[in-house]
Amino acid sequence: MKRREPIMLGAGSSDFGKQSLNAEQLVTSAVAEALEAANLTAWQVDAIYLGTVFPYAGTAHRAMRAAGFAATPLFTVENACASGTLAFHLGSQAVRLGEYSTVLIVGFEKMSSFIKGAIPTDPGDLEALQSMQLPSMYALTATRYMHQYGVTPEQLAQVSVKNHAHALHNPRAQYRGQYTVEEVLSSRPISDPLTLLQCSPISDGAAAAVLRAREMVDDDAGGVRVLASHFESGALWPDPDHDQVWNWELIHRTTAQAMAAAGLRHGDIDLCEVHDAFTIGELVTIEAMGFCPEGQGAAFTEDGQTTYGGSIPVNPSGGLLSRGHPLGATGVAQVAEMYWQLTGIAGPRQVPDASRGLVETMGGSASGLSGNGCVVAAFETFNQKVTTT
Amino acid sequence: MKRREPIMLGAGSSDFGKQSLNAEQLVTSAVAEALEAANLTAWQVDAIYLGTVFPYAGTAHRAMRAAGFAATPLFTVENACASGTLAFHLGSQAVRLGEYSTVLIVGFEKMSSFIKGAIPTDPGDLEALQSMQLPSMYALTATRYMHQYGVTPEQLAQVSVKNHAHALHNPRAQYRGQYTVEEVLSSRPISDPLTLLQCSPISDGAAAAVLRAREMVDDDAGGVRVLASHFESGALWPDPDHDQVWNWELIHRTTAQAMAAAGLRHGDIDLCEVHDAFTIGELVTIEAMGFCPEGQGAAFTEDGQTTYGGSIPVNPSGGLLSRGHPLGATGVAQVAEMYWQLTGIAGPRQVPDASRGLVETMGGSASGLSGNGCVVAAFETFNQKVTTT
Repeated sequence: MKRREPIMLGAGSSDFGKQSLNAEQLVTSAVAEALEAANLTAWQVDAIYLGTVFPYAGTAHRAMRAAGFAATPLFTVENACASGTLAFHLGSQAVRLGEYSTVLIVGFEKMSSFIKGAIPTDPGDLEALQSMQLPSMYALTATRYMHQYGVTPEQLAQVSVKNHAHALHNPRAQYRGQYTVEEVLSSRPISDPLTLLQCSPISDGAAAAVLRAREMVDDDAGGVRVLASHFESGALWPDPDHDQVWNWELIHRTTAQAMAAAGLRHGDIDLCEVHDAFTIGELVTIEAMGFCPEGQGAAFTEDGQTTYGGSIPVNPSGGLLSRGHPLGATGVAQVAEMYWQLTGIAGPRQVPDASRGLVETMGGSASGLSGNGCVVAAFETFNQKVTTT
Repeated sequence: MKRREPIMLGAGSSDFGKQSLNAEQLVTSAVAEALEAANLTAWQVDAIYLGTVFPYAGTAHRAMRAAGFAATPLFTVENACASGTLAFHLGSQAVRLGEYSTVLIVGFEKMSSFIKGAIPTDPGDLEALQSMQLPSMYALTATRYMHQYGVTPEQLAQVSVKNHAHALHNPRAQYRGQYTVEEVLSSRPISDPLTLLQCSPISDGAAAAVLRAREMVDDDAGGVRVLASHFESGALWPDPDHDQVWNWELIHRTTAQAMAAAGLRHGDIDLCEVHDAFTIGELVTIEAMGFCPEGQGAAFTEDGQTTYGGSIPVNPSGGLLSRGHPLGATGVAQVAEMYWQLTGIAGPRQVPDASRGLVETMGGSASGLSGNGCVVAAFETFNQKVTTT
């Protein structure tokens, strides 16, 4: 364990969902919980890395002031759905490379007050004007994937059933209802073959995490090691010489680099939080990450391998589909779930004996064709064994 | 000179001003110029750090695709008026700390299509609703400053006269007219005592710069060393025990840290590009940076010390007041001016024998009370003398 390795000492989150709380209130609740868990105060934080997509200039500053910070360097970053994870990546790299010793990671989004339906895109975005927004991109991917691998709509819907079942045990999740395959398929069509319950909702929420360099952490502190974090960007559609669908190559490459840097193999991983903005996303992601062969994700899910008792529980939090998807908050909420799971305090949704996990988030652009940015981070329970380097 | 010291190998800029070009076109022209100057191609860039305030999610990605980048990690950051400078800071630190070897810095803003008057603020921002937006904050500062130091409106207006005169030699500047003190003072009142010609305009524009680690730069390459870059955040109003006006302490502290890291004293500095979003801003800034005593900035300016032939030419580009202020582009345009000046290619606005300079930008929040974030960076002509470390 290196001196500068970032240790996550605490995490926090607001409730997720459409709600009357504003950005300041959402951020304050998440930050207070994270600082309390870390047993740190605002003045011990060297810098804040914050992910958000739709604030007015100044909202991030105002939210951090409400949370008790007035003179701490604030790095506000945007990477669409992975804005929070990009903030996490930059903050954890800042600790690892010696820029700061203690950083606060924050993500928030207040979407319900101005977004109805799909995420707004630039009026000058000709692809979005031709309907190539994210629901359509994922729908095209699903259609191609189902054709290519002989997957049925019922199998696709299993991802939604599974993640909604997980969220039954997450008191902060936006959706906490049990759904059957039939209910998922008969929910309102959004972009065929994707129905409403196969799409992540519009949400309000905030999440936070505290990272500190190993050399400043007490040996007996509880926490989670950030073994590695990688941010990679990917081109658009797959290499025509290969069969993989949209984003497969990017997720595959980013995961391979993060796992290599962390020194982990697939058998070491006890759980994942991944980007299931749409059901098809989780299937492509678990395949691209290497947890099952290409084209086998649906059968793997149907067989229960991605839930409790399976080979790799995926999205015990409920994922974006059920916990909700306040864009900037999502990546930090995934990281927070990793904190709760790997410190063994996830309560009724605890993955038994979880000691290592991966977070994956896909971001980039809000219409599909301009390139994406993926973050994969690897975590391990902080076990107080120090290797000096 | 350290192996990882960032060397600026090229810079570029669109024209600034209200114009019909869109974000993609503005960014493409700035990036193409910067890459050509650096004699590098898109595939040699490891990562892009981009500052912008008002894009839709996806605009940054779309603009970079238009400029020839589809699979390069893209870090999009926001820090109000200093968004571009924060992108520069993060990119230069990434090179310095070994995260990447070659980075492209980009800033852009397309404001004219949707902003009339002051920068829009969050409907939930109670301070903004009570008119505490930036023009008012700077006006209050000006009033206090003029009272405290016995400065006249005519002296304040000299900053505008001087920067507009500088912009006469900048073909990319938004305003290229000569103005007298009387014309500045008789222009439309914005927030007393600030008149229209004392406020930076709404602008469209983009700027870019290429940085590369010293160890990858040929000894005979032309360029500019990035000696240091600091990002600090500051509390709101001054310590009541001191007399300094708004932001003085933050600018003072950030400058001191950057100059110490760069090993520079004031006498070493040949020029500055600073944040003159309003005339009062430049006065407070040059005092806080230490180029003249507190309260003496107006007399110092009137005496010609901040123009050609003076002790420290400030804003030879014309500054935000005259070059224009497309928020995300501004900081990168300041850095680009430093490239042109310190490589001796600034043409009719060249500061003679310029070899060292500072860039300062103030950002943070779009209403004034929630904390600010200041970047100061120090530059020196790349002189090919390598000190191995």
